[in-house]
Order: sequence, then structure tokens, then C-alpha cells
Amino acid sequence: MMPQDIHPIAFVGAGPGDPDLLTVKAVNCLMWADVVLHDRLVPAEILALAPQAQLISVGKEGFGPSVTQDEINRLLVETARTGARTVRLKGGDPAVYARLAEEVDAAEEAGLSYHVVPGITAASAATAALGESLTKRGRNAALRLLTGHDMKGFAEQDWKALARPGEVAAIYMGKRAARFIQGRLMMHGADPATPVTLVENASRADQRIVPTTLSHLYADLSEAELNGPAITLYGLAPRAAQAAAETFIEEAL
Amino acid sequence: MMPQDIHPIAFVGAGPGDPDLLTVKAVNCLMWADVVLHDRLVPAEILALAPQAQLISVGKEGFGPSVTQDEINRLLVETARTGARTVRLKGGDPAVYARLAEEVDAAEEAGLSYHVVPGITAASAATAALGESLTKRGRNAALRLLTGHDMKGFAEQDWKALARPGEVAAIYMGKRAARFIQGRLMMHGADPATPVTLVENASRADQRIVPTTLSHLYADLSEAELNGPAITLYGLAPRAAQAAAETFIEEAL
Repeated sequence: MMPQDIHPIAFVGAGPGDPDLLTVKAVNCLMWADVVLHDRLVPAEILALAPQAQLISVGKEGFGPSVTQDEINRLLVETARTGARTVRLKGGDPAVYARLAEEVDAAEEAGLSYHVVPGITAASAATAALGESLTKRGRNAALRLLTGHDMKGFAEQDWKALARPGEVAAIYMGKRAARFIQGRLMMHGADPATPVTLVENASRADQRIVPTTLSHLYADLSEAELNGPAITLYGLAPRAAQAAAETFIEEAL
Repeated sequence: MMPQDIHPIAFVGAGPGDPDLLTVKAVNCLMWADVVLHDRLVPAEILALAPQAQLISVGKEGFGPSVTQDEINRLLVETARTGARTVRLKGGDPAVYARLAEEVDAAEEAGLSYHVVPGITAASAATAALGESLTKRGRNAALRLLTGHDMKGFAEQDWKALARPGEVAAIYMGKRAARFIQGRLMMHGADPATPVTLVENASRADQRIVPTTLSHLYADLSEAELNGPAITLYGLAPRAAQAAAETFIEEAL
């Protein structure tokens, strides 16, 4: 008996966008589903892996129209209560900036059991694209995942600690907070030459890598006009050889 | 043309252990490989996905005999130079505490191109097993990944910041450093009742979850006698319903 057969709800990580970065378990859950409640940013190629399922977009998206968290919770519970095998498909990893706790609370309050299938989070995919490592002996023994926004607006963080040489952070939803983050880090003494790399649409065909430095972050971000979801890798630069390899791939395809 | 056809080396994340938590891309790389240089902890069920390949264990393991990093680098370069399609298979995500940078340096110095396939890191798998989220609105807008050890021994971290209420950290290789970590956090004023959960063999059939608190961490860890790789989730407790569901799965299997 598979775990997905004994739980009415599966919270499933869709990964960063490339369907090949789904886990085997996520693919199995999509094949098992009667209903898929998915974030708006999950690409069509991934949803196509559940042709038998009813697809319902519940995602939140930048400034666009969005379904409230309460509505998502209600829809999730109502769907699972009908007996439908319900997959709640979230971009990236359900445990990282995906409001998993709120939806698990709703499931538990309704007496519905569930399991969680982890996914590749954007930080891993973006770093892989640079040929870089998130941790490195002699550079950083700790890694931070941050969000540019919290419930109160731009998120305050431990800027003083982050401003130290060798620190590495992956900043989610950091585009609109870029000027704020840049200002805070510079104010706390971070080296203006600290490498910062923006990766838009990590792992997707339209992935873009924008390498910059802390002092040029806001200007280069503004100029790049990134429209897709982007992760900001603070303290990391793309490797030269990897940049060359990426070019080679594009030419070869 | 697939990227793996134009790079002689693929650095591939094997995930936490459950073969179903491999990505589709990782499975494809294993099928493509002529040689797989793998960490010792990668389970046999995953290696079985490359029946055509020569398997070479190069992993480091606790106190046991181990291959030095220089030897791994040399072996990687020599193998790829023969023209063999070479997969360097690392537990978890290659970018998280996996010495990726050292091996990519060696590949670049040898003029060998490569690509990196991200994997599910232990923090994601362990948290999924708890039914918990690594981030949560109103609790933590930042998440830390830490290691218990660095080149100098037990790793010093930003204990003061971590000791604040609501902080969450996933500590890799934290078992032997447990008493040290507990002491540092208590010294910096962390609440002794802060939940801490140890997850041994996350995602594997022999997964064990040991919930405790900061003040009981060392005692409970000693009593549990964990022999496999374990991740320490600081600031997270398993959900009651999820613990019940896990029991149910075991009974159902």
C-alpha cells in the first residue's frame, strides 16, 4: 500500500519549473490525483502529467488577482472531503515560503490526513545553474534562506551578521525589496563588491542569470527588467566556465 | 541534444535516500552513466538504477576508512578524461555540505565541463516527515542551514541570533556536536523548552523521529543511539496528527 493511498491529501513540491526536476514521488502523486490544486506559477508541462485530474489554479501572483489563503484552505478541505484524491501542488518545496503550515492546519482541523512530498527549492536550482555551491569549506559553514517580504512589508533580517565577509544567503521574493536589502547591508558595512547573482525562472527554458555586486544590485536589477520569479543569491557569483558551458548549451540546442 | 550529452561530468544529487525522491533528471543521469562515483551513504536501491555503470564508492564516512578529497578529485578527472560518461553522485543536494566547490574546481582546472543536478536536501525531507514547514508567517521569515562541524572542529555560529524565539535551523552533521550546540544556545539565552527534533535516515524505510527540547537534546540523543545520518531540526516539533499518520502507515504496510 502506497502512502498516497491512505491519505486523502498530498502536499507536493513541484520544484522550480523544469518538469525533470520533479521527484519520482511527485510524478506518482500527479498520476494518482483526482484533483490538483496548483499554484499559478506551476508550468503547463508539469500539469500535463495529471491529464486525468481536474486542475484548479489557486495561486497567488504578484500584483494580479489572487485567491485568499482562507479560500485555498476551504477549497482544499471541501475537495478532499468529497473523497477525491487531492494533490496540493506548490512551486518549489512546500516547506519553504509556501504557506504549508496554514493549509496543514486546515487539513488537521477538518480531520483529514495528509503527507508531504518535498521538492527542489529555487535556491538549489539557481545555485546549480551557476555551477556554485551554497556552502563551502573555509567560506561559509552556515547558509540563510530569507524572504524579501513578510507580513509587515519588507522583512527585517539579521543584516549585521549577513554583512560579514563570506556570508551566503538565498533571498526569495527579493526583487521588489532589492533597494531596501542593498541599503540595509551597505549600512551594516557589507563590502560593496560582494557578488550578488539574480536568477530568473531558475531551471526553465527562459532562465536568465544576472550577475552583479551589492553596490550595483538595484541598478542592474532595474535594467534587467526581470518579469518572472527570481531568486537573489547573495555572496555567490556564476563560475566563468559554467557561464561558457551555458552558452554552449544554447548553441547546441 | 540533452545537456548530459555535451558535458563529460554530471554532479547529481541523490536526495535523502528514498529512491522515489530522486528527480527525474537524476534518474536519467544514472541511466546515462558509464561510471558512477558515489558517496558511501547512497543506498543500493539508488545505485541499482545504473546497472550498466561501473560503481565506485568514494564516500567519506564518520570514523571509518575514507577516500581523501584529493583522491576523489583525481579519480573524477581521470575517469572523465577517458571519455566515460561520469556521474558524481552525492547524497542530498550537491550544493549543501557536499564539497561540490572542490570537485568543480578540479574539473575546471582539467578543462572538463559539467552540469549540476540539484537534489532534495535532508532538511526538506526531514521536515516533510514532521508535517511541518521550515518557514512560517509570523514565526520565522529566515531559515538557517548549519553544520555541526567545520574545518576547525565544532562550528561556531551566530548563537545569539539563533537563541531568539521563533528561530528555525536545520543542523547537518550535528549529532556529535549536540552537547556543544545545546550549551552555546542555552548560554545565549535560548528557551530551554525550544522544540528540537532529530530525524535519522530521513525518508528511508528505517527513518526515526526523536522529538525533544533544547534542554533535553543531549540526553535524549544519547539515549536514542542514532547510528545513521541524522538532521537536527532546531525550533520544530512533529505535528501530533502527522505522528499518528506515520504510525498508521507502518501498520498498513
